[in-house]
Amino acid sequence: MQTPDRTRITRFGDLTSPEAAQRRGALLILPVGALEQHGDGLPLSTDTLRAEYVAEAVAERLAGRAHVLPGLPYGVSPHHASFPGTVSLSARLFIDVVSSIVRNLGEAGWERILVVSGHGGNGASLGVVEQDLLATHPDLHFAWTLVGTLAPEASAKLPTAEVSGHSGESETAQVLAIAPSAVDRSSLTAGVRTLQELNAKARLSRIKPPSISVRFEHYADNGVLGDPTTVTAEQGEVILEEIVTRLTEYAEAMLSL
Amino acid sequence: MQTPDRTRITRFGDLTSPEAAQRRGALLILPVGALEQHGDGLPLSTDTLRAEYVAEAVAERLAGRAHVLPGLPYGVSPHHASFPGTVSLSARLFIDVVSSIVRNLGEAGWERILVVSGHGGNGASLGVVEQDLLATHPDLHFAWTLVGTLAPEASAKLPTAEVSGHSGESETAQVLAIAPSAVDRSSLTAGVRTLQELNAKARLSRIKPPSISVRFEHYADNGVLGDPTTVTAEQGEVILEEIVTRLTEYAEAMLSL
Amino acid sequence: MQTPDRTRITRFGDLTSPEAAQRRGALLILPVGALEQHGDGLPLSTDTLRAEYVAEAVAERLAGRAHVLPGLPYGVSPHHASFPGTVSLSARLFIDVVSSIVRNLGEAGWERILVVSGHGGNGASLGVVEQDLLATHPDLHFAWTLVGTLAPEASAKLPTAEVSGHSGESETAQVLAIAPSAVDRSSLTAGVRTLQELNAKARLSRIKPPSISVRFEHYADNGVLGDPTTVTAEQGEVILEEIVTRLTEYAEAMLSL
Amino acid sequence: MQTPDRTRITRFGDLTSPEAAQRRGALLILPVGALEQHGDGLPLSTDTLRAEYVAEAVAERLAGRAHVLPGLPYGVSPHHASFPGTVSLSARLFIDVVSSIVRNLGEAGWERILVVSGHGGNGASLGVVEQDLLATHPDLHFAWTLVGTLAPEASAKLPTAEVSGHSGESETAQVLAIAPSAVDRSSLTAGVRTLQELNAKARLSRIKPPSISVRFEHYADNGVLGDPTTVTAEQGEVILEEIVTRLTEYAEAMLSL
Amino acid sequence: MQTPDRTRITRFGDLTSPEAAQRRGALLILPVGALEQHGDGLPLSTDTLRAEYVAEAVAERLAGRAHVLPGLPYGVSPHHASFPGTVSLSARLFIDVVSSIVRNLGEAGWERILVVSGHGGNGASLGVVEQDLLATHPDLHFAWTLVGTLAPEASAKLPTAEVSGHSGESETAQVLAIAPSAVDRSSLTAGVRTLQELNAKARLSRIKPPSISVRFEHYADNGVLGDPTTVTAEQGEVILEEIVTRLTEYAEAMLSL
Amino acid sequence: MQTPDRTRITRFGDLTSPEAAQRRGALLILPVGALEQHGDGLPLSTDTLRAEYVAEAVAERLAGRAHVLPGLPYGVSPHHASFPGTVSLSARLFIDVVSSIVRNLGEAGWERILVVSGHGGNGASLGVVEQDLLATHPDLHFAWTLVGTLAPEASAKLPTAEVSGHSGESETAQVLAIAPSAVDRSSLTAGVRTLQELNAKARLSRIKPPSISVRFEHYADNGVLGDPTTVTAEQGEVILEEIVTRLTEYAEAMLSL
Repeated sequence: MQTPDRTRITRFGDLTSPEAAQRRGALLILPVGALEQHGDGLPLSTDTLRAEYVAEAVAERLAGRAHVLPGLPYGVSPHHASFPGTVSLSARLFIDVVSSIVRNLGEAGWERILVVSGHGGNGASLGVVEQDLLATHPDLHFAWTLVGTLAPEASAKLPTAEVSGHSGESETAQVLAIAPSAVDRSSLTAGVRTLQELNAKARLSRIKPPSISVRFEHYADNGVLGDPTTVTAEQGEVILEEIVTRLTEYAEAMLSL
Repeated sequence: MQTPDRTRITRFGDLTSPEAAQRRGALLILPVGALEQHGDGLPLSTDTLRAEYVAEAVAERLAGRAHVLPGLPYGVSPHHASFPGTVSLSARLFIDVVSSIVRNLGEAGWERILVVSGHGGNGASLGVVEQDLLATHPDLHFAWTLVGTLAPEASAKLPTAEVSGHSGESETAQVLAIAPSAVDRSSLTAGVRTLQELNAKARLSRIKPPSISVRFEHYADNGVLGDPTTVTAEQGEVILEEIVTRLTEYAEAMLSL
Repeated sequence: MQTPDRTRITRFGDLTSPEAAQRRGALLILPVGALEQHGDGLPLSTDTLRAEYVAEAVAERLAGRAHVLPGLPYGVSPHHASFPGTVSLSARLFIDVVSSIVRNLGEAGWERILVVSGHGGNGASLGVVEQDLLATHPDLHFAWTLVGTLAPEASAKLPTAEVSGHSGESETAQVLAIAPSAVDRSSLTAGVRTLQELNAKARLSRIKPPSISVRFEHYADNGVLGDPTTVTAEQGEVILEEIVTRLTEYAEAMLSL
Repeated sequence: MQTPDRTRITRFGDLTSPEAAQRRGALLILPVGALEQHGDGLPLSTDTLRAEYVAEAVAERLAGRAHVLPGLPYGVSPHHASFPGTVSLSARLFIDVVSSIVRNLGEAGWERILVVSGHGGNGASLGVVEQDLLATHPDLHFAWTLVGTLAPEASAKLPTAEVSGHSGESETAQVLAIAPSAVDRSSLTAGVRTLQELNAKARLSRIKPPSISVRFEHYADNGVLGDPTTVTAEQGEVILEEIVTRLTEYAEAMLSL
Repeated sequence: MQTPDRTRITRFGDLTSPEAAQRRGALLILPVGALEQHGDGLPLSTDTLRAEYVAEAVAERLAGRAHVLPGLPYGVSPHHASFPGTVSLSARLFIDVVSSIVRNLGEAGWERILVVSGHGGNGASLGVVEQDLLATHPDLHFAWTLVGTLAPEASAKLPTAEVSGHSGESETAQVLAIAPSAVDRSSLTAGVRTLQELNAKARLSRIKPPSISVRFEHYADNGVLGDPTTVTAEQGEVILEEIVTRLTEYAEAMLSL
Repeated sequence: MQTPDRTRITRFGDLTSPEAAQRRGALLILPVGALEQHGDGLPLSTDTLRAEYVAEAVAERLAGRAHVLPGLPYGVSPHHASFPGTVSLSARLFIDVVSSIVRNLGEAGWERILVVSGHGGNGASLGVVEQDLLATHPDLHFAWTLVGTLAPEASAKLPTAEVSGHSGESETAQVLAIAPSAVDRSSLTAGVRTLQELNAKARLSRIKPPSISVRFEHYADNGVLGDPTTVTAEQGEVILEEIVTRLTEYAEAMLSL
């Protein structure tokens, strides 16, 4: 067996303790996902897969200046709780876990932490983490983002149904690009595609602000918004490339602070 | 003294218990604000004033179909904590208070609740409340909004400095319209007005996503973004009219659910 | 519009941040109330109205040496929970909110804080807040009082039924004095007036110590103890004058510490 | 060894499980105390001793209709924290422990529970327990009392210094009566005896309402209010007899509910 | 009455505050028990009796170098919850109480604390307390033990049924030795004695590791494992002597740290 | 690309929601690890690697009757907190996360859950989870184990130093077998090897019971107990085979309940 090149390690957990001690200047990227229904064809871990893919891609481009922390594969998913296989942490618990990890690292000397969430439902909690840290660790550079919002251009170009979102065109394309063998292609099925199919509350929820929530069984029987059968891995690659590019640029800016 | 017309009461707290019992179909509007620095000329309660004004204006237009709950005059303001007079609840505590009020009402038979926040810093917490309620009270219609985001058209027309935000043009115009005597006009002073005046982190925070936080003393010495000296009460009225109109329309939609 | 005299501002929330910075020697008065049933004729916010009235009257008499903080309009009201319109915070949550406000102010340099509660059910929680602060902020001067216990002389003179208390003679007289238009006079109705009408447990609860609790629906169908129809605003003024006088004197003593 | 008469067992913990099952109609008495400084001559467990003595005396008089639960020997004592040997639970933790014990028993079928506290500092917390139970266990008969307030007549007759209280005349007399060997008589020393000796804040704290707290080191160097050297066991017996008599009568009333 | 020799006091609560101040070098022993079913013949407080007996015996042998803290008579007993008389604290609450006591003492200058549990169900919680203290009080010497595991030799010699444990031979022998009058000898009855009598899950639970839990009503109708009718007080004395000897030796080692 | 055989999926997160719905009879295995120092040559994620390896090996042998849940890569590691790269959750938080995952699954219809921990420091917390679930989900079959205790035979045969444990012979052999490229072989260094090298407290901690904790910097400068340089991947394979065999057998027994 050839000796691996330890300078090229991207995962923080693959470092030894003395090696970690020498990377305190690095940006640490924490991928957070979810274990929740993603329709008939995408795996329960879809959001974790996407977060980890993006985190590692950014870390690779930063070549030693960033490391990927072990990820959190459970998120805040109350809206999917009635679908089998969903495991949802309360927002409070999710906040505590992320805060705890970040505080440990902040107190041990790391100054730059970026959380990448593959799941939109983690957003409010990450906003709270951000505020809590501002009160207790004002000098830490803590940022977070949803993966799904980082590709405005590619998303605009992707043909989608009138209603499109969870487990729909964009998400499916991404998983086809990242982990094609994880998709049960023959089971991919369209969900709700038109505003007309939505009930009054679900329609109201599409206008923001204000924000109003709807459980996913009230959106669509199969838990899907849009038509996942229409997309390709290539489209997913375009979306992911935009995400990784933007986020790498942002990470560079954080490293310059 | 003339007998007041009790059918025209908008404030929930002004009702008697038997009267409240007869309004279970009504929309209840909870204004939430903050007690925090608003620069040299706006009062600490600026956000509470705005939330209560909007809540009452909407309730009045709905003439008996909506009531304004007693408001919460403290919010989540860690970014302003170093300025005198700021009192900040932790996100967790704010979440618990709002949740508790809503759960009480939900269990007592009210089905439509709308939270109106005059303070952007309450947003993440309200997002968490929304998710928590989805898990425990799936049939309750719970919506929330920030006041500041409900006037996209009037805001686009308001002349502002390159950097504008907290205690800046829009917020000052609104308080001039709502409560002119609460403004210390002679002390209104411009804060940071250009991106060039911001430090690297503050500049980075203007790009979203990702989200990264900055304490307000790192934005501007006087805690102000933009130039509050340039606006008038008339401009505030235009902004408020758009906010109230949009929100009344939304409230009507909630009443139809 | 005439320029208001900012030196005469009594409400803390009406100050700007720089103005607040100059009032660190002042006594801060926090009114806390409740949103709970007050029989057929008094409003749900009765306790908040009384707390705010007293707090502001004391602050006015202290002319700039005291300020009224934004009040808490929700309290600890489990005994009234079965009556429509009651919203009750758990004792724990109420404790946390009051503690949090006081700690914020204590850490920002204010040294004298007085909580005025219009609702007896907040008493145990305020006792806990007092103890907690003794452990963590031993140098802060923190005091609290119930409004209802501050007029022993006027109360002794007020003619009442054998059983008198919640929403009864004294409370009704006070609201008639403070906010006559908030009272639905034509609906005021006597509640339980004699010990004989009480069941065994309710009667036992009138002996103290020990302390034993009874839910209000077990006291009286309309949630009233005593006869609110017998009193006048003038009687309320006498009670309130004694309360405000005593409390102003106490506040003076706190300012001398 | 003679077989003990198991029908005369007063302590709940001395019963077997099948025996306990047959006493669900009994009143359960929970003594709660404190571990805190009691001056130079009284033991740290003074309050626990008094609570347990009273609880057992009442249970004995009720001959099988009441049982004494294992007691809590730690209480809420932040005001004594700076004196060696004091162990203080936070109010919150004390509330949780008492609530938990009572809820267990309530769910297992006991309906009458009386808490007897030897320590005044536990009062606010017990008030919160009472309120919490009202919300969750409305049919449980839960009462609590401080030992110290149950002998108004004997207390009025006891000669005391102008300032008298913690570890003073009454408390010392009681311990001399209950556990003479626990008192280090030769070390009993007077503490603060006159209002004049108190500082301004300590003096203000003697007026109630409002309530304001003072740490005990700010009252008296030796933590004593009054003169414990002037009393006898006989005086303690008179006080205790009044306490036990009143409380037995109250317990009888609870058994009749 | 003869003056007691105060230098021979073993119970911490019997000391005065000035005496406690002089014992900061001592080892403090905290006995923790349970209030839970112990079959037909042993008292509910069996585990507390055993913990307190052992704690006091060790303290006596250490003659002034160790003191017994007031004990906790409630423990973590969810597996016995369906049997009358059981009162179970949640693990979380038990952890908080023990932690709080230890932290108070650690902050007041005591450096050596040993918890002796008469109840196996408290073990996991004490393990958590140990870890928590390691994080916050790294210099405190905190140790804990179950009474039941400290007599491997005597236990090996005690004749027992194939299945033996809770309220069985060893525990009964110990209570017969410590408090014979607390045992209802005529009611002692064998419980489950053979593996064959156990259901599949109960049998699986006897293999460790892994650990799997079974509620006691699924082990045996009377809550007993083994045959308590076969043992004597003398056998209990042998077991207790081994426990006290081992623990005294360990305590000596702690005093030498 | 060939269609993967979805019946052979072992990871729960790789299933779609409809597929998960059909596996409610399966055993779910949750691997939990730690992110903590493992000396100079083992990676920070050592415990997670081992837990996931074992969980997947067991699931594979059970061929569709067991699935591996997404693992928790952070554990309870306060004893390692002073070494770089360690991230430790509080026991309380770890308990909450594991409990939450298990409760979600229990409420969604899964009845058999096995937690496999690669880290000994998670043991006390898992014991608490087991007890909590017994109170709230008595019919769930919940078991947990430490990986390290499941190979008594192979461990007994492995030559080790007098003192051996964390990051020592056994653990190193296992990682060499599982993930040889994750070991920085050239940096592996012996830690403390003899009792004589330990300080008094560290020596005392080797005797159990009682249990007493020592932070790892007080054991050994490099955080290692034993000599990791003496072992081979082959020895690790023998250990792992015993672990996997035993655990598969246990899992079979759980599936038969």
